[in-house]
Amino acid sequence: MISAVRQRLGPKAVVTESSEIAPWLADWRGRFHGQSAAILAPASTEEVAEIVRLAAEHRVPLVPQGGNTSMVGGAIPPSDGSAVLLSMRRMNRVRSLDPDSRIALAEAGVILATLQDAAHQAGLRFPLTLGARGSCTIGGLASTNAGGTQVLKFGAMRALVAGIEAVLPDGSVHNGLSGLKKDNRGYSIDQLLIGAEGTLGVVTAVALRLVPAIAARAVAWVGVESPAAALSLLRFLEARMSAVEGFELVAEDSLQLVLEHIPGTRAPLASQHPWQVLIEATTADAETDIGAELETLLGEALSAGVIGDATLASNEAQAEAFWRIRDSISEAERAQGQTLAHDISVAVADMPAFLVEASAEVERAFPGTIASGFGHLGDGNIHFHVRARSRSALDWYKSEAPAITRLVDDLVTAAGGSISAEHGIGQMKIAELARLGPPARLHAMRAIKRALDPLGIMNPGKLVP
Amino acid sequence: MISAVRQRLGPKAVVTESSEIAPWLADWRGRFHGQSAAILAPASTEEVAEIVRLAAEHRVPLVPQGGNTSMVGGAIPPSDGSAVLLSMRRMNRVRSLDPDSRIALAEAGVILATLQDAAHQAGLRFPLTLGARGSCTIGGLASTNAGGTQVLKFGAMRALVAGIEAVLPDGSVHNGLSGLKKDNRGYSIDQLLIGAEGTLGVVTAVALRLVPAIAARAVAWVGVESPAAALSLLRFLEARMSAVEGFELVAEDSLQLVLEHIPGTRAPLASQHPWQVLIEATTADAETDIGAELETLLGEALSAGVIGDATLASNEAQAEAFWRIRDSISEAERAQGQTLAHDISVAVADMPAFLVEASAEVERAFPGTIASGFGHLGDGNIHFHVRARSRSALDWYKSEAPAITRLVDDLVTAAGGSISAEHGIGQMKIAELARLGPPARLHAMRAIKRALDPLGIMNPGKLVP
Repeated sequence: MISAVRQRLGPKAVVTESSEIAPWLADWRGRFHGQSAAILAPASTEEVAEIVRLAAEHRVPLVPQGGNTSMVGGAIPPSDGSAVLLSMRRMNRVRSLDPDSRIALAEAGVILATLQDAAHQAGLRFPLTLGARGSCTIGGLASTNAGGTQVLKFGAMRALVAGIEAVLPDGSVHNGLSGLKKDNRGYSIDQLLIGAEGTLGVVTAVALRLVPAIAARAVAWVGVESPAAALSLLRFLEARMSAVEGFELVAEDSLQLVLEHIPGTRAPLASQHPWQVLIEATTADAETDIGAELETLLGEALSAGVIGDATLASNEAQAEAFWRIRDSISEAERAQGQTLAHDISVAVADMPAFLVEASAEVERAFPGTIASGFGHLGDGNIHFHVRARSRSALDWYKSEAPAITRLVDDLVTAAGGSISAEHGIGQMKIAELARLGPPARLHAMRAIKRALDPLGIMNPGKLVP
Repeated sequence: MISAVRQRLGPKAVVTESSEIAPWLADWRGRFHGQSAAILAPASTEEVAEIVRLAAEHRVPLVPQGGNTSMVGGAIPPSDGSAVLLSMRRMNRVRSLDPDSRIALAEAGVILATLQDAAHQAGLRFPLTLGARGSCTIGGLASTNAGGTQVLKFGAMRALVAGIEAVLPDGSVHNGLSGLKKDNRGYSIDQLLIGAEGTLGVVTAVALRLVPAIAARAVAWVGVESPAAALSLLRFLEARMSAVEGFELVAEDSLQLVLEHIPGTRAPLASQHPWQVLIEATTADAETDIGAELETLLGEALSAGVIGDATLASNEAQAEAFWRIRDSISEAERAQGQTLAHDISVAVADMPAFLVEASAEVERAFPGTIASGFGHLGDGNIHFHVRARSRSALDWYKSEAPAITRLVDDLVTAAGGSISAEHGIGQMKIAELARLGPPARLHAMRAIKRALDPLGIMNPGKLVP
């Protein structure tokens, strides 16, 4: 099949040098390792369609890969070498960007930061962002319905995708890029492909919604007594302004780890609080004094006893310093020792109680562990992390981790939540999805997968248990 | 099967009196007529599941029906009596309405106006609205991804649905009402059911997003030279305010028909213009003078030569009078004679040219007809109507209508548009979808339908050609 691709598409479309393949066979955290005889790198939608037809003919599964930034091994091929990597990196054009309709058409391999820059140059903004923005790609973001830190105001990818172009498992091209705002001609194939992790086809291009550029932002750091107080603050702010787009919860414990391990960081507040919140409010209107608005409201919240203390970043450098604390938590935890991460969600209103109760439950069931959470409280999405109290237990990760994860997933499921809020299922969570997934949903997913990919050639072993 | 349902669910769940069934066997425009031996009327999700299991066992197809307001015969059973009506009217509870999360849980049979009132009483608003608001139901709105006049700002149902509860064709219950803002556990069954017209399952309840109540609105009537000028006005306004939520294009010809046939109507402007626009801008902020803002901007547009004239409704009664003109166009056309309606969309930027060119093309190909469009210009969605120049051609509707519709659909398809923007496919457009639907999409739809409803018991003969 590889030689057939080379014959049809030329040598540029096929990489077989093992040193060039190797970096793409493991995920960035080094948890998943696969094998692939080649990397296929098509340069156009037609070339992707040709590859998919050959894959079907030869019964060789394809593993689509963008920036290889999956948190769940979603872009790593099986270890038996039965599948071939399909890299979208050569499909990296922003095909168009229309300021009137505020729609950008980006090919799957366009890097998020590149798209953000292109929007910025047009006086607009693509509002989704996340840590991997310098390497993750638009196709992967759509295929995983990625989230990030600005979901509160703008939604995850599902809300920002206006259309999808994809090659379906039979080699046909689905073109959802027509730019129609309304189209009720049946099942939404676009919506089905969003979050399908490449198991129903290869996303080749995406129409993306842009929003007005930011004229000003205000970033605040707030100390509160509890996650419940943090949620009260969010409700208080949301009732009075529509500008809040980031609202990140940070445990005092996480802050201390960052201060200890990340050079150049300092505590935003002089006072100590059990929980902290990073707030970002933005405006597209240059005449709005967003800093003054946020300051006034935080003053009211302080007087009302909702919060313990607050400080507003006085300039962009300080705003970046606040965000750096938030963005460094995982790195600080890794410096401290082994960390077991869970990307989970429950209903927003339920998260404060869940966070407190689940942490206590995990620490009780697994003595010597510290459980905590940080992240997108306003989305009901917390990165629930469990770590060993000391570095001593080097094999802790292997010995206790699966049982801890099962407990966390059980608690989430009992609370009506999701074991994957924004990172997807990939291969990492597929067994847990099989164990805990709602039967009706699992049944429907399996039926759809069989119907659209009867040969099983699209990203095998991912998402669908 | 009917007696089995009566036995399990009791007499209340089964109506067999033919006089009680008859009103539900035809659509409100009297174009589609079906047969059904009974109306099944379950009172709970469990009862729906029981009925679906019995339907599967007895191989009797079900036709879900809400307010029976479909524009495309989507809720009318086959004429051979092979299927049974499944009325959702007894599932009419608003289960909850949470002002904090701004989510309402409404059963499928809740009437739109009832939900709007419930939201209003909680100081909130459900922003989707349309002519049939007094009889259409939430289940039908979700199943058809309904649109309406406020889509410009708030989106169609797809954007307003936060979760779906449905009984799938195997009788299992899909529960998407968990209230999770983020959930990446695989294919979105919710999204698949939105717009599926009951062909993949019966929607039993919907979680709906609410928005802040309107504090004030401004309604204006504007005269312009052309659809292109109307679109320029929209872009001009959108760049300066986010408050525009209604932007309805009306041809002078349509206005004259309304003034002639609808008692009590009068022209909003003293001057005459080839095209008119009805604009509604709203604000949730009581301190914003939305009327003054809109007036200033329309003044600028007038000075810049974008528009020919404009008037702002000076009070609510006048605002209602402006809307009444827009809402009476179809009625006025019917009073004038036979009208052939097409609910179509193209990309927003393409609509002005399409409207002018397609009208000319139809009038040229079918002498004696008048082609025109009105509606949601900002969504690229026009109700493209063709009528006979006089009442004389009584059989015109039957003789020429199919050929006219084929021409319109061909023109729309050639322009990359949709033959159904917001009304769906139902049975009315199924042949045209088969003729013109993108092959990849038709193939995927058929595969999904077979996979999830292998017995073909869900709303046969609709949507999937």
